[in-house]
Order: sequence, then C-alpha cells, then structure tokens
Amino acid sequence: MALYAVIMAGGVGSRFWPRSRRALPKQFLDVFDEASLIQNTFARLQPMVTPERTFVVTHADYAATTREHLPAVPPANILAEPQARNTAPCIALAAQRLHALDPDAVMVVLPADHRIANVARFHEVLRAAVDAAGTPVAADAGRYPLVTIGIRPTHPETGYGYIQFDADGDTDGTPDGGPGDAPVAHRVLTFAEKPDLATAERFLDAGDFLWNSGMFIWRADAILDALAEHTPEVAAAFAPLAGVFGADASDAEAAIAEAYAATPKISIDYGVMERAPDVMVVPGDFGWSDVGDWRAVHELADKDEAGNRGDGHVIFQDTAHSYARSADGRLLVLVGMRDALVVDTGDAVLVCHRDKAQQVKDVVDFLGLHGMTEYV
Amino acid sequence: MALYAVIMAGGVGSRFWPRSRRALPKQFLDVFDEASLIQNTFARLQPMVTPERTFVVTHADYAATTREHLPAVPPANILAEPQARNTAPCIALAAQRLHALDPDAVMVVLPADHRIANVARFHEVLRAAVDAAGTPVAADAGRYPLVTIGIRPTHPETGYGYIQFDADGDTDGTPDGGPGDAPVAHRVLTFAEKPDLATAERFLDAGDFLWNSGMFIWRADAILDALAEHTPEVAAAFAPLAGVFGADASDAEAAIAEAYAATPKISIDYGVMERAPDVMVVPGDFGWSDVGDWRAVHELADKDEAGNRGDGHVIFQDTAHSYARSADGRLLVLVGMRDALVVDTGDAVLVCHRDKAQQVKDVVDFLGLHGMTEYV
Repeated sequence: MALYAVIMAGGVGSRFWPRSRRALPKQFLDVFDEASLIQNTFARLQPMVTPERTFVVTHADYAATTREHLPAVPPANILAEPQARNTAPCIALAAQRLHALDPDAVMVVLPADHRIANVARFHEVLRAAVDAAGTPVAADAGRYPLVTIGIRPTHPETGYGYIQFDADGDTDGTPDGGPGDAPVAHRVLTFAEKPDLATAERFLDAGDFLWNSGMFIWRADAILDALAEHTPEVAAAFAPLAGVFGADASDAEAAIAEAYAATPKISIDYGVMERAPDVMVVPGDFGWSDVGDWRAVHELADKDEAGNRGDGHVIFQDTAHSYARSADGRLLVLVGMRDALVVDTGDAVLVCHRDKAQQVKDVVDFLGLHGMTEYV
Repeated sequence: MALYAVIMAGGVGSRFWPRSRRALPKQFLDVFDEASLIQNTFARLQPMVTPERTFVVTHADYAATTREHLPAVPPANILAEPQARNTAPCIALAAQRLHALDPDAVMVVLPADHRIANVARFHEVLRAAVDAAGTPVAADAGRYPLVTIGIRPTHPETGYGYIQFDADGDTDGTPDGGPGDAPVAHRVLTFAEKPDLATAERFLDAGDFLWNSGMFIWRADAILDALAEHTPEVAAAFAPLAGVFGADASDAEAAIAEAYAATPKISIDYGVMERAPDVMVVPGDFGWSDVGDWRAVHELADKDEAGNRGDGHVIFQDTAHSYARSADGRLLVLVGMRDALVVDTGDAVLVCHRDKAQQVKDVVDFLGLHGMTEYV
C-alpha cells in the first residue's frame, strides 16, 4: 500500500493581485521566500512521498509553469485539466490515474498554495491520517474511510467552513491536536458552512469544531467508490479513464477532454464529504494558513517592532502594522500609515487596508469586466 | 509710478516628494492642471503687470527651468541667486535691480508656488495694496509704507504666522476683507509667530488677525531704506549692486556673487517687517493656499462624492477622502482606504496618511542623510 501525493494547483488566487495574474496564479508566487508556494508544498512532502509518486492536477494553461517549478516531478505526473470544474472532477481525475497505476494507492490530496509552519508536526498528523485511511471501517472490512485534516481553530474565523468531530474517543481530557497529543482520527459528525461571527465564536468555545483545510487522505478506490455513490454524474464522466490510463498519452488527453466536457462543476466537499457516511478527521495544529490574501502574508511574515514588513526597497516613517513590497527597484515610502498593505508590480500598485484584503478579488473582477485585461 | 512683479522661486518644496526633486522643485510642478504653479502665478499677474515688468528671483540651478516655464519673461529679468539666503537677500537683490531701472518702481513680491481661486478678488486686493504703497505716510511726505497682504483665516491654522491689524478704521462693522467689502489697508500692530492651537483659536475669534501670506507690495526705494535701517548687514552687502545694474551682465553676476557671499541668511519678516514702523496690511479673501503639501492638493482639488480625487490611471474601491496620482500609465488601485495620499512617480511611490503630509519633508531629509540621492 504505497503513498502518493496529489497537489491541486488549478486556482487563480486573484486576491493576490497585482502579483497574481491569470498567467501566473498565486501558487507560483514566491510570497514568503525564494521558493514559490507550490515548491514549498512539494518540498514539505518529500520525506514521505517521492517525486515519482507526486502528481499535480492543474489547468492546461499552467502545465508548463508547473513543470518549470517542479522539475523533479516526472512531466507525465502533471495532469492538465482542460477546464476548471472545481475539486470533485480534479480528484476524480487523479484517483483514476492512481488507481490505474496502483490498485492499493493511498492518496494525499493537498492544495498547492497553503503554508505550514511546523512541518514535523504536519508529518505526524499526516501519518495518523494515512493510518486511518488504510484501516477498514469496523462495519465492513472491504470499506475504507475518507479522511481529512481539520485545523484546530485559533480564532473565530468566518472565512472557513468547519468540521465537527466526535470527541468521545478523546481519553486524556485535552483537545485533540493540542501540543503533545498524538494525532488521532475521529469520526466526523457534520460539515458546517462558513459561519457568522457569533456562530464561529460558539464553534471555537465548543472545542469539537475544526477548520476545513481542504486536505484529504484516502485510498484511490475508496474515493472512486464514494464518487460513484454520492456524485454519480462526476463518476460517470471519469469512469472511461479507467481503461485509458496506461495507454498512450494522446488517447488520455482526448479522454480527459471528454470527461471534463461531461462532468458537472462541483466541489468534493459538497459532492462527497458532506454526504459520505465514513468520514474521519485528524485534528492538526501545525501552524497552518491558506494564505488567503495579502493580510495573511503580513500576519505570517517576520515583522519589525512596529509590526511592519517591507520586501524590497521600502521605507516606513511613523508607520505601523503594515506590509509593503516593491518591484523593479522602485522605492516605496509609507508615511503615517496604519494597517496598510502596499504591493507594487511593474505595471500596477495596490494600496489596501488590512481589513479589506478580501476585496482585492472584486478589483480583479472589475478589471475584467471593464476590459482592462492587461492587468488581470 | 509703474508696477513691477517679483516672483520668488528659490524654494525646494520637499513636502511634494516624490514629485518635487532637487532638480525640479514644487513651483515647476503641474500640481492642479496642465500649467505649473509658477506659470499660474505669472498668468494671474498678467492684467496688472506686463511680462517685461515681471522679474523672477531663483536659485542659479533653476534659472534655465524658469526660462523654459516663463518664455514670455525676458531672460534678463530672471535673477539667479548663487546661494539660498532666505527672503531678505532675495528682496534686496530685486529691489536694487528695479530701483536702478525705475526710481519710482513699485514692487509686488509674490511666492511662486501659491494658489489663488478668485483672481478677480485678488486683483482688487492687490490694487488696494498698490494704492497704499504709493501713498506717503501721514507723518512724512517722503516716506512710504511697506504693505503686505494678510489672509482672512478660515480655521485655526497652526502652520502660519499671523498679523494683527488696527481695526479702528473699519467703518461698516463687518470684518475687512469679507465678501463685498472694498479692500482697505490697515496699520499693522504685530506679527505673531506660528501659534499653538489654543492661541490660533483665540486669533480666529478675535477677528483682527490675518495669516501671513508672504506677499509684499512696496516702492523699491522704501524697502531699500527699510533694509538699510533694520538689517544693515544685508543692505550693505547689496549696496554695491546699485552701481552695477545697467552695466554689462558679467559684471552684475560677479557683483551678485559677492553680495551673496557677504550677506547673512535672514527672512524679510524677521529682518524688516517685524521691526519697521510703517507697515500696513490689506486683508484678502480670494481663496488663497500656499499649497503646502499633498494634503492641500487633495483639499483644493475637485473630488467625487466619496471625497476622492484620482489623477491618471486610478481605481478607488470602497475608499474615501483620498488622493492618488499615477505615473507612466501604471495602474493605482486603492481598496478600503480612508484619508490616503498616494503619489507615484517613475522611480518612487509615496503612501501617506492625510494628517501626516508634513512628514514627507522628513523622508526627503532621511533619503539625503542615507545617501539615496537618486531619489532626492
């Protein structure tokens, strides 16, 4: 039973405008250091999954860039989606590929653009999830659970979905995933949509709610069975691939195009996770962030005593809690600012209040709608 | 008794960084429209003073730029200072030049970088000041007053000096300089330094205090006499010029260099106005601003309903009370900002809180001290 990684890298990440562009989405940006987010995601898997067993699903437009960023991954492992159809088709594609390769394959499915501070702890959690995914459910020795990693919440975040788990198995009286706890898989009770603040505060106080991280661990055959059961339209669209993978690549490309033309657009959460009976979650506390916007970059970055972080050619004068990034050697000067995010690229400059970083997405929509496609 | 204009254009205006640079000070910037501030100052004098009777005193480094901006002014009327020595030497130079040209010359001395909204009213006030400057003081038919224009304050500004005038001659019971009042020259009682806020509020309530605008009107012989009496070191340094002007230009240049080497650095306010007995002021209410910083530009500009003004390629998203100016076709996007001033030039971007616009000067000092002279 070998372990494979599937990195989902099809997103656009328009909240990282003006750095993220249609031609260069967030996962390819060096947001924190010299390496891109996708390179960090790949590197962090290395001790557990070899490059040869690492797969990437991305939009066809980004296949070449993905190959450039991950030269160690065999080019054939980069699966190109002809259209963005959300996560269920992406996962169906990868599961068909891996199942054709190895009927006992266990897949770790990870977004390409997240950040994890404590990699050693991440590996512990991942190992517990892999163990759970490889252990048949009690009721049926032929069935295996779908496992996800839930993040122990640190604040009442309203931007994430939540997962409620069955805490009965918690024997030491402390929350699972707390420091020192060995990671343990729990049965999932419910998936909750993004809550309002009062609900998020209730979730936080309750102690048995976790953030939905979008990381999944399961046997390829288990997720294929679950897709067939809970989203048969997706499963049917991708079923023909079972006979194609392993044949020559041009056949696969045509079959993939047909599958994407036939599949509905649906997320794996909505299509499978919220409907399947045998779902488990391992609480994780490894300094996770989905690096959702420039505010998150500021929060995660090392800062000076005033809470400022400048990348490139930046001067802060009487300024606090701010982030600035210059480009092309241009000088950025902030005077008397609080909670400002300033991002310069060659052709555009964003000046954004920290609390409004989510709205950057709206700007990208505006630019597209108004034909300013050179900036999108 | 002919009227001459002297435009003082020697300043650097570093609060307009990053647009103002050592090589291109504020007076040469097109802050509000297609014309530079010095071009607007010149144009606004035109109905009253001909180009041939308009003189400019500027630093030698800016003489060529001044000629480019004011092609209608005879090149010989642009007087180059070899060093910046504050306003008293600048005025002594111009007064010697004009007195040599016309012993009865009346000079209007104006900073190059101010803005006046109501030019017709400015002309009324200026005519009253010229009348006063040409009328001998009662005690001595051979003495003429020094006249200044004081601005009717609209708020308790702490950034300006104030002038208290003798309101006894006010016969209609309304403040002089109010709408509809014919402008009248009053005797000056005191010059007050920049006040604290409580004092500024007291000045505003009192009704007989005006802002010191730095605009002066006097006979050339009257200011030369006053310089001799109150700042004899300055007068002595410039006295040799009386015999030189009118001779060939190379002699004048050498003599001017000697005068500047000999003169102390002193303002006309401190050196003469605060000491002279026969000083008068005409209250003015013509929409004056010294355009001191980027905040003033935002305040004076036409704005949209949210109080924003964008010059160039600018998008405001959920933003209010802000000013942004782009350069080189680069796109500036403000998201969720309040009270922000953003100024992009080719090589630098300033992001400044409206209330901290004065501190931009400190940034320029910082850049100079740290050897970043390419930005100064």
